[in-house]
Amino acid sequence: MAAKEILSKVGKRVRDLREAKGWSQEELGFQSGLHRNYIGGIERGERNLALLNLEKLAKALGVHARDLLP
Amino acid sequence: MAAKEILSKVGKRVRDLREAKGWSQEELGFQSGLHRNYIGGIERGERNLALLNLEKLAKALGVHARDLLP
Repeated sequence: MAAKEILSKVGKRVRDLREAKGWSQEELGFQSGLHRNYIGGIERGERNLALLNLEKLAKALGVHARDLLP
Repeated sequence: MAAKEILSKVGKRVRDLREAKGWSQEELGFQSGLHRNYIGGIERGERNLALLNLEKLAKALGVHARDLLP
């Protein structure tokens, strides 16, 4: 996979799961303890997020961290 | 999962896959483009690695990034 393609795919996965819950980026930020702007950057594939933040997102979204990866 | 438990589990997975190939940390460092000391830190669960480095490790080890996560 091209280097940054993984970031776009993770971002899309996060967005899809968030929208399936009917949550705004702000709500996901609140639920995960991450800033809404950071959530936006992740969803756009612009953030090379680290495992502990991936885990926070996964917990908030009710999935395993591995389920956020392509 | 406790916050840092994921890092220990990823580290163990990396170590197991590396050893299955009969590689030293130095060899995995060479194959992945990461420093051998950084590999050591990952295997000990001390590094909160980011997705692009997880992807480099996965490629070197011949697995998908998601396969490195518990």
